[in-house]
Amino acid sequence: MRVLVNGREGERLDPSDRGLQYGDGLFETIAVQSGQPRFLEWHLERLAEGALRLGLPLPPRTLLRAEILAMCTEDRRVIKLIVTRGGSARGYRPPGHPEPTRIVVAWPWPTWPQAFWSEGVRLGCCHTRLGRNPALAGIKHLNRLEQVLARAEWDDGYMEEGLMQDELGHVISGTQSNLFAKIAGRWVTPSLDQCGVAGIMRRAFRAWSADQGDPVIERPLPAAALAEASAFALTNALIGAWPVREFAGRGLALDQTVAQFNAWLARQ
Amino acid sequence: MRVLVNGREGERLDPSDRGLQYGDGLFETIAVQSGQPRFLEWHLERLAEGALRLGLPLPPRTLLRAEILAMCTEDRRVIKLIVTRGGSARGYRPPGHPEPTRIVVAWPWPTWPQAFWSEGVRLGCCHTRLGRNPALAGIKHLNRLEQVLARAEWDDGYMEEGLMQDELGHVISGTQSNLFAKIAGRWVTPSLDQCGVAGIMRRAFRAWSADQGDPVIERPLPAAALAEASAFALTNALIGAWPVREFAGRGLALDQTVAQFNAWLARQ
Repeated sequence: MRVLVNGREGERLDPSDRGLQYGDGLFETIAVQSGQPRFLEWHLERLAEGALRLGLPLPPRTLLRAEILAMCTEDRRVIKLIVTRGGSARGYRPPGHPEPTRIVVAWPWPTWPQAFWSEGVRLGCCHTRLGRNPALAGIKHLNRLEQVLARAEWDDGYMEEGLMQDELGHVISGTQSNLFAKIAGRWVTPSLDQCGVAGIMRRAFRAWSADQGDPVIERPLPAAALAEASAFALTNALIGAWPVREFAGRGLALDQTVAQFNAWLARQ
Repeated sequence: MRVLVNGREGERLDPSDRGLQYGDGLFETIAVQSGQPRFLEWHLERLAEGALRLGLPLPPRTLLRAEILAMCTEDRRVIKLIVTRGGSARGYRPPGHPEPTRIVVAWPWPTWPQAFWSEGVRLGCCHTRLGRNPALAGIKHLNRLEQVLARAEWDDGYMEEGLMQDELGHVISGTQSNLFAKIAGRWVTPSLDQCGVAGIMRRAFRAWSADQGDPVIERPLPAAALAEASAFALTNALIGAWPVREFAGRGLALDQTVAQFNAWLARQ
């Protein structure tokens, strides 16, 4: 693992940083493929949207871009960019003139079985719910305990991903992926105006599907509606899209759309 | 500001710590008075309850107690204890055998005008809501963006504290305090089974009030019910209890109970 903190290699973090104290910040997880950060501009756009929502003045985009590119020293890796509101006096109140902390971490590329793409994964249901809060919905902020608790519910071997519902029983996403469900022949993805993270690969899948003449429907998705789904796809910035071969014990046929999307993604 | 990280003075934090990455941890804010950490055992109890809920194995209580006491080198100060789930591989999944990080920060004692106790404070209403999630309700975890956004809504000079409601319009607490409302002659405090933090001073106020023969009623508190309240008290570990002299523009008479509680607290 390589780390840049405010541009300095191997630096550590001041424990009074608001990123630790309150989760007061944002992050992006970026796939580096062939030495290039994939969808970098979309990641920087989402970060800017999150910063606007949190009232957090971002470091210049040129600086963030340069630090990310400086970490792209291997063909394949994962780069995580964190921007926090920096230090402050004690207490929740944000400082009038924050000096944000930027952290760029480079991780090795993770390995998953090739069959997760070619044959699909098993999808289960998590008990842990997502709280509803429009103020934080959609953005990729550092308050992620709900996902941690949900991901702690199962050991590998039972399933590869778990679905999370909100407090009202709407399906929102996987613990680390966005969800697409094929219902009555159309791809549907949950609205994320109350909770959840609007993923970069979700954006890519929607853009690609619209280009194919099959725009994705975004709407609230009650858990009961999943019984009618003929196929599912799970997306995130690293995996692209995984088809689902088994949902809550029910076997599913593969939908070729998912493979077509991944083939398109590989050419990006 | 003095810091101990895993017992080492002035140490900094590994940026891959899950406390920063996900807010995966807990904290306690402890008042030191006459060189002693006030209600220390209650703080350690609440931390243990939070750790149980998050599945986070705590460092030994004797070690935490010793490190807190080692930081009580001044008559009055604020000690913040943070315990995170430590480092892990990338991803939400908690490690099978976490090595928690413990951080003890000592801050100077803050100063507030004496009139906040003797004459009361102004209490307003925040727009930012609290999401409902029983899995995280009551415990003092590190995911605090809702409080940060709420506290950013006003500048000092308008009011001293802001009330927060949950998504269904129940009043829960102030941004940094618990709420007691006197309704029909009885103290009422909101249920915290869906959101909010069960404060140590809330516990103290309830215990004291029960000892006075006037047990506090804990129940869901719709915002509309506040119109009937004749008095409010705001509590936290540092301030004890502040009476409220003005709520959302309405002037309120002082209730002597609050002063009596603070007098009792000063003798602890």
